[in-house]
Order: sequence, then structure tokens, then C-alpha cells
Amino acid sequence: MATASFLHCTSQKSSLSSLFRSDLHRRSPSVKCSRPMKMKVTMSVDNRSYWAVMEADIKAHLKQAIPIHPPLSVTEPMDHLIFAAPRSLAPALCIAACELVGGQRNQAIAAASALHLMHAALYTHEHLPLSKPKPKTKPTIYHSFKPNIELLTGDGILPLGLELLARSDEPTIKNSGRILRVIIEITRAVGSQGMLDGLYLENKCSGSDGGDDLCDVGWMAHVGEKKVGEFYACGAACGAILGEGSEEEIEKLRKFGFYVGMIHGMVLFGRDSRYEDKKLLEVVEGFRVLALKELEGFKEKQILETILE
Amino acid sequence: MATASFLHCTSQKSSLSSLFRSDLHRRSPSVKCSRPMKMKVTMSVDNRSYWAVMEADIKAHLKQAIPIHPPLSVTEPMDHLIFAAPRSLAPALCIAACELVGGQRNQAIAAASALHLMHAALYTHEHLPLSKPKPKTKPTIYHSFKPNIELLTGDGILPLGLELLARSDEPTIKNSGRILRVIIEITRAVGSQGMLDGLYLENKCSGSDGGDDLCDVGWMAHVGEKKVGEFYACGAACGAILGEGSEEEIEKLRKFGFYVGMIHGMVLFGRDSRYEDKKLLEVVEGFRVLALKELEGFKEKQILETILE
Repeated sequence: MATASFLHCTSQKSSLSSLFRSDLHRRSPSVKCSRPMKMKVTMSVDNRSYWAVMEADIKAHLKQAIPIHPPLSVTEPMDHLIFAAPRSLAPALCIAACELVGGQRNQAIAAASALHLMHAALYTHEHLPLSKPKPKTKPTIYHSFKPNIELLTGDGILPLGLELLARSDEPTIKNSGRILRVIIEITRAVGSQGMLDGLYLENKCSGSDGGDDLCDVGWMAHVGEKKVGEFYACGAACGAILGEGSEEEIEKLRKFGFYVGMIHGMVLFGRDSRYEDKKLLEVVEGFRVLALKELEGFKEKQILETILE
Repeated sequence: MATASFLHCTSQKSSLSSLFRSDLHRRSPSVKCSRPMKMKVTMSVDNRSYWAVMEADIKAHLKQAIPIHPPLSVTEPMDHLIFAAPRSLAPALCIAACELVGGQRNQAIAAASALHLMHAALYTHEHLPLSKPKPKTKPTIYHSFKPNIELLTGDGILPLGLELLARSDEPTIKNSGRILRVIIEITRAVGSQGMLDGLYLENKCSGSDGGDDLCDVGWMAHVGEKKVGEFYACGAACGAILGEGSEEEIEKLRKFGFYVGMIHGMVLFGRDSRYEDKKLLEVVEGFRVLALKELEGFKEKQILETILE
């Protein structure tokens, strides 16, 4: 389905802008890619392969770890909702950060998959039809299953991600401590001080719980920090932890992930017309400069830089 | 609020029957304790203190780990929903099993708290008002918060439980491997092959997704296995793992927990009138005998036996 979204859009080839279009397309199928972001397009074929192969690896890991098997009434909705969520770059950042500090892809693949599953679970619940109407700002999405199935499936996806991560423990390489640290990172990033705080703040400023007067640019930037920035930061930090990076490397990559997430978040919120296009590009450029600065000193930084092109 | 439930009920003093009444009272405030189970009542004051002190310790641990602090709009619903859930014996079984195999209470307190939080999160979501009516068999409960707040709060409680557990890692005593094993146990017990499977099966046999013809005693017993039996089994096994019990001890206590859970589940379903009282007591007695058998060989088994009186 992700591929289908790409095919519907036009010819931009940079990682972030493609993903933004993919997100938008999924959030509201009726929206067309008629206002592409004016972002620099310089990614080479090789670099695109790096991210594409990584995403394919994560998907393959998830498909293998969570097969569709009887009872299909349970596993089919789970499979659908896991892959129906819009792409998040947090899982890819996790693996890229692991490799950047000298780790192997297989050291971070379970954490990357767990990050995707957290994102998918919360996306499912974010769009659950409750007995009271959703806030006005939420786009309408197509629901393939009844609300109680989507609720239970989301509840099942969340612990499954952490189970996969815990099971990736390899006593022979003594990484239990690092996996526990990553579990703490991820549970905090998605919990009530993280993504859920962002969802709560977003609800509060919109239709059902507050008023449009709350939804100024500063407020929405804060929502973006919680919903996207800190989640991406967590993804990159987890990869660096699992790749056995130094504390300094972990913190630099955490900041890098945060800025990438803020760019992603800002562009999403920009599409809600709270930012003028010009202002939006200025903010994005500011984060891009900050992000590049955090990569200074890493030998193989070129691949991560391409995510900003 | 748990105390209040007890005060509303009459004079039975056994652990299980008291808890059943507490559960029932919470599930449907209008139901009165007018048909108490005819169970043996022999618990001594000292044995009651053991379970009461344990439950107070778990509550104190949760209160200390999850304080009410600004923003109150987030932490007050969380505090309320954590303690509004009906009691489950799985957390208490976790600590009792840990102590039975020679462990200390503080080795299992984080896991016991995590079990309570899983139970609270799923209970919150089980009673969430969705856009389509709940199955006919679900009792109506009072909702203190709007549906979106209850949804988000439940989503926040679940990862918080696993975060607390992961944070209980003590590198000095090298228990990372055991904590990861317990995380796997808990995530499986609550996930789509465990409690959530039970909720799904329960939904399927009732109003919204199926028909009453599905809801025979065998089906509901299977629901009880998934929703309660396996969760209690998990609680006892986790305690034995953290208390450094042998594999044999872990499996014996897992079975013991399962039978205790089945008794609890059977009595709950008995209240839904699918069992005749006499038949119900026969089934309960059968599980009681099996449970007692699993305790054979443990030196300090008397305290655990009291949970069956």
C-alpha cells in the first residue's frame, strides 16, 4: 500500500518529501499531491536504495515475526493495521544510527520493528470512532474493521512490539542491559509524557475539548515535538544504544533525530495551513542546519545527511 | 475505592470471595451483594494481613512511581483509572510466588505493579464507549472522563507498566535477563494471544459480533482461561522467575496461578447466570483440588493455600 501511495504522487524523489506525501495521502485519501513541497532534490540512486532496502528489511522482519495465521479474524486485522499506518522515519533512523556508530543492522531490527508497531498502534487508536465526535481537525479515514476490533487490535499491537524487542535478547552477546534501556526509551517516548501527551494536547486545542484560539503555531509546534520530534529522537537514540555507541554519540543522534522529526512534523502541520509556505520553509531550513551540525564528527555521515535533502 | 466496595458488601472474609464481590460491585454499581458465594471461610487474621499488606505495598509502589503532578489534566485521570479497575489477584500472586521460592518482596514489586497496570489499561479500554454499542452482555459502568481521555489514558498506562518493570533492572544483581523474560511473559499474557483474545472471543459471542448461541458454558470457560486464568498464571510465574525459582517451581506456580484464575473467572461468569450455582461450586472445587496439588513440595505453602479458602 505504501508503494501505491508513492505511485499516485508526482516525481519528487527526496526521502522526506516523499514520505510527507505518503503520510498525507494515507491520512486523507481524497487529498492529491497538488502542492508538493519545494525541497531540494539531490538524492542519488544509491542513497535511495539504502533507505528503501532498510524499510524493506523492517517490513520483512515484521511479516516474519507476525505471520497471518488462524484465527484469521485476529491476525488479518492486525496485519492490515500494522501496515496501514502512515510511514514514520523513526524505525529507519533507528537502524541508520546503529550502523553509523558501527553496529550491525540485525542489532537494531527488533527495536526498529517495535517503533513501527508503537506508531501503528497509536495511529489506530488516534482514528478510532468514539461515541463522541473526533476533534474537527482530524481527517476522516477509511475504517476496514469495526471499532471494537480496531480498539483491541491496537491494544494487541502495542505489547507485541515490546515482546519482539525483549525476545531479541542474546545472552551470548550480553545485550540485556541495552535492550532494557531501549524499552525504557520507547515506552517513555510513546507514553503519557511523549506521543500521547502530543495527542492529548492536539485534542485539547481542537473541536471537542477546547477552541481554535489555542491552536496557534507555538502550540502546534509543541504538539509536533511530542508526536513526532521526540519519537524520532528516540528512534535514533535507540539505534545508537544498540549499536554500542558512546554516550556522546547517542545524545548527538538523539538530537539529530529530533530535528528530522520536527521537520517532518512541521511540514505535516504546514499542510494544515497554520504556516505560510515561506515561513514553513524557513523553519524547516533552520532545523536542517541544526540536524547537519549534530552529524559532524561521524565518519559515515553522508547517508544520514541524505534524509535531509 | 476498593475499600468502599468492600464496605458495601456483607461479612464474608475469604480472599477470593471478597475479591469477587469487589469485582462485581465495580463492574455494575447497581448490583448488590445479595447472592454471596457459599465458599469456605477459614482465613485467620494473620493470613488476611499477609494479602492486605501485600496489596497495600503494591498500591504504595504505584502511588510513589506515578504521582499526581501537573499537568493534572493528564495525571488525575491516570491515577483515577489505575485504581478504578476491579482488583485482580495476579499482582498479589506474583509477589507471593516470589516469596515462596525464597525471593524478597522488592524483587517482584515492579512486576506486580506492571501486572496491575496492564489489567487497569485493558479494563479501561474494555469499557470504552465506542461509536457502535457495546455487546449486550457488558455491564454499564460510570465514566468519569470523556471517551478520548479514557482511550489515551489507557494507552498511556500500558507502556508505563513496562517502563516501571524495565527500570527495576539492578545491574549489581544481574537480573536483566530475568526482567526481560518477565516482560515477554507479561506482554504475551495481555496480548492478542492472551487477555485480548479473551476479550475478542467475548465480544464475538455477544450482541455486536455474533449471537447468544455461541455463548455456551464451554466458550465462556475459554474466555475465562484467556481473560483471567492465563493472566493469573503469568503473575505467579513472573514472581517465581524474579525470585530465582527453579524451572520446575516456575511451572508449578504457573499452573497454581492458572487454577486460581479459573476459579475467579468461573465465579465471575457464574454471576452471569450461565452456570447453575451447584454446578459452579463443583467446578470451583475441582480447580481448588488441582491448585492445592501444585503447591505440594513447597515449604511455606500455607499462605498461598489461604487464597483458596
